[in-house]
Amino acid sequence: MSALLETIARVRKDVCELHAELTRYELVVWTAGNVSGRIPGHDLMVIKPSGVSYDDLTPELMVVTDLYGTPVRGINTGSGGTVDWGNPDLSPSSDTAAHAYVYRHMPEVGGVVHTHSTYATAWAARGEEIPCVLTMMGDEFGGPIPVGPFALIGDDSIGQGIVETLKNSHSPAVLMQNHGPFTIGKSAREAVKAAVMCEEVARTVHISRQLGDPLPIDQAKIESLYDRYQNVYGR
Amino acid sequence: MSALLETIARVRKDVCELHAELTRYELVVWTAGNVSGRIPGHDLMVIKPSGVSYDDLTPELMVVTDLYGTPVRGINTGSGGTVDWGNPDLSPSSDTAAHAYVYRHMPEVGGVVHTHSTYATAWAARGEEIPCVLTMMGDEFGGPIPVGPFALIGDDSIGQGIVETLKNSHSPAVLMQNHGPFTIGKSAREAVKAAVMCEEVARTVHISRQLGDPLPIDQAKIESLYDRYQNVYGR
Amino acid sequence: MSALLETIARVRKDVCELHAELTRYELVVWTAGNVSGRIPGHDLMVIKPSGVSYDDLTPELMVVTDLYGTPVRGINTGSGGTVDWGNPDLSPSSDTAAHAYVYRHMPEVGGVVHTHSTYATAWAARGEEIPCVLTMMGDEFGGPIPVGPFALIGDDSIGQGIVETLKNSHSPAVLMQNHGPFTIGKSAREAVKAAVMCEEVARTVHISRQLGDPLPIDQAKIESLYDRYQNVYGR
Amino acid sequence: MSALLETIARVRKDVCELHAELTRYELVVWTAGNVSGRIPGHDLMVIKPSGVSYDDLTPELMVVTDLYGTPVRGINTGSGGTVDWGNPDLSPSSDTAAHAYVYRHMPEVGGVVHTHSTYATAWAARGEEIPCVLTMMGDEFGGPIPVGPFALIGDDSIGQGIVETLKNSHSPAVLMQNHGPFTIGKSAREAVKAAVMCEEVARTVHISRQLGDPLPIDQAKIESLYDRYQNVYGR
Repeated sequence: MSALLETIARVRKDVCELHAELTRYELVVWTAGNVSGRIPGHDLMVIKPSGVSYDDLTPELMVVTDLYGTPVRGINTGSGGTVDWGNPDLSPSSDTAAHAYVYRHMPEVGGVVHTHSTYATAWAARGEEIPCVLTMMGDEFGGPIPVGPFALIGDDSIGQGIVETLKNSHSPAVLMQNHGPFTIGKSAREAVKAAVMCEEVARTVHISRQLGDPLPIDQAKIESLYDRYQNVYGR
Repeated sequence: MSALLETIARVRKDVCELHAELTRYELVVWTAGNVSGRIPGHDLMVIKPSGVSYDDLTPELMVVTDLYGTPVRGINTGSGGTVDWGNPDLSPSSDTAAHAYVYRHMPEVGGVVHTHSTYATAWAARGEEIPCVLTMMGDEFGGPIPVGPFALIGDDSIGQGIVETLKNSHSPAVLMQNHGPFTIGKSAREAVKAAVMCEEVARTVHISRQLGDPLPIDQAKIESLYDRYQNVYGR
Repeated sequence: MSALLETIARVRKDVCELHAELTRYELVVWTAGNVSGRIPGHDLMVIKPSGVSYDDLTPELMVVTDLYGTPVRGINTGSGGTVDWGNPDLSPSSDTAAHAYVYRHMPEVGGVVHTHSTYATAWAARGEEIPCVLTMMGDEFGGPIPVGPFALIGDDSIGQGIVETLKNSHSPAVLMQNHGPFTIGKSAREAVKAAVMCEEVARTVHISRQLGDPLPIDQAKIESLYDRYQNVYGR
Repeated sequence: MSALLETIARVRKDVCELHAELTRYELVVWTAGNVSGRIPGHDLMVIKPSGVSYDDLTPELMVVTDLYGTPVRGINTGSGGTVDWGNPDLSPSSDTAAHAYVYRHMPEVGGVVHTHSTYATAWAARGEEIPCVLTMMGDEFGGPIPVGPFALIGDDSIGQGIVETLKNSHSPAVLMQNHGPFTIGKSAREAVKAAVMCEEVARTVHISRQLGDPLPIDQAKIESLYDRYQNVYGR
């Protein structure tokens, strides 16, 4: 039991601190973005509380939920007692259902990030995938960054759109149409890295295309870059 | 009486501190933007002093005015004395008349913000509303961000333009032609949030349109997003 | 004599500190921009030393020169002695000749700023003036921001181009062709403000024009804005 | 021997600290950029470790390698002993082979920098050189910034492309096609300055070209600017 409590404390700390990368790289304004992390070995996840400023986040404010997004405010210690935690006044992020759907359907995923980062969202508003014309895109995404369907918040539509798009792609990022990017990773940190790199390539390819057509990279060379970066290079 | 003084002190502190959000999100340069807040239950408001750098703002420098923009330098305590406050050398922002007009004509408004934030002002210079092509625009603005008339400073023209444009719109933001955005909210903080989100969507839709046409969102879906965010979601 | 020394110390401190506004508003990279200030009542000026990082500037490192740009390393105290100051190893900015020319030919100018700020320099590279399509441009510049001639460094060509362009304009900013903006003001602080506002309007008008034509403002209304801001408003 | 150890300590400190300029000027995100410096008089270089955040860099973490990119973990003191240094768990940057190739083939080079800075990479993605239309480009680059070939990581292709492109150019920067800029300098600091200026001119010329054609500068005037800046001006 104490192992679980320690794990929850560690994931809460990680998830809390990783939000600072969203602000550092200007992927979010106000409270409009969130990071979550899976509690390994349990059907639990940790996510940003709704409506709390990034400046005010602390590990203790991170909300623990089950994989359907229902807050779990305490845990049975197995000896008849419970350990309470969490602030019952705080709701999990309004995007929790989408994160939870991903964890239920992609067991290899340990972290999920959602932002409305400017350039990625601009591609998403046109419903246009980002073509793979940079070697760093080959490394990180192994091809284009795909577009997911338009989906309204309130049920599993967003989660389904994310999972169906990503399961057929090397890319850890999907641009949900008219909405913004969701990214995944083996850990919350890897998902944050994918969110940072997604915006970086969205911006660079956008700027390149403003004055002409970027040169394509052969698919074989993209695969070579991706294989080396993911395997040989040890990521 | 002491309740009013406490309220004034609280609003001054809030209004002062909220200017830091304008600089954090780079909505303003030099001294070119201002926040105001209503003193609830009184025909008074608090606004940034004119010409003072954001670095140098303190709660005590915030200017209290009546709802015609005339500074109120002290208040009758009701027992024959007065309590003085405010620095008689400081004038309220040169935009005070516009803020005051809004408070007189929109009793539900508790805060007003004016900036020349880059992308919103760029749309304003073309006299072009920002189309609602992002789910976060549906949430926050419930439709396009409208354009108000060209108006010169010096009388009630700007205030009238703001009120007439906003009273027919879900949007808490108006782009005054060739000038820049004004935003409103139930509180000064909500008005600042609207200013931040206005620039964010102005930038994202601009960038999206640079390389093609963003996909429209059905009006019914926009209404659904707005209703949920404003009502169900509890904003 | 001590009055002059005090004045020099004050101007050195002001000029030194104002460089922090160039970096704050991202008008400069590395060491590529400089502020100068006139020593009132004397044929002397203070300017940034060449090649010193903005992080390392101190008042004592600011170089005092005559109005031909020759460093003045000490001053005759009038009683047969001299007071030395300044670091003889530091040269004044390579742009000193242009600043000095302005002080010689525009006695009302108390400060000069040169940057290569991105958007202003982009207009300068096309040799295109910035049209007055924003009310804040009417306030601050009273019309378009004009372009000065192409001129090579090394003689008075740059200074002549600045003075000849600005003497026929309300604008305190000139875009030297293929080079970048120079701005003037009654004080070094006013010249820095003009540099900040020049980049702000260069950026905003650029972005507005990317998606169409900004709406023009009548010349009479521009004059009205300018007169009010410069006179009635007390600037 | 102690002179070499002192030199290594100094270069490690310099190389470590110079990474802060990459983040200050937003040339890099996450860990995607690196600085190296030659150990003068020895076939050794110092480079960023792979995968370490810029926040976490210390001089001791900088990896010393020979000029084929093989880590050198200690050094024979000449009296039968060795001095160990370096963290055997850290690999040098994955770009080390390219840096090392430059040091082997360009003996005048003392520092190399690689980034994926946004605007320079955008030109690189189109395989288009940056034309010399700014006086500061004349000063620093003496002409256009050239494009190098598409090359995959894993052998000497990138290094060869850099060297072959730069040896026929005044420019200390090359835009490797679909990849990003590499810059060189007499010292690591000069190479970092070239990386900063490369992005600055890439951005400014991009923005200028968005609304028309920048005016060309005569080749003779470019040569005049370059000669003065590099020679007369003493750089």
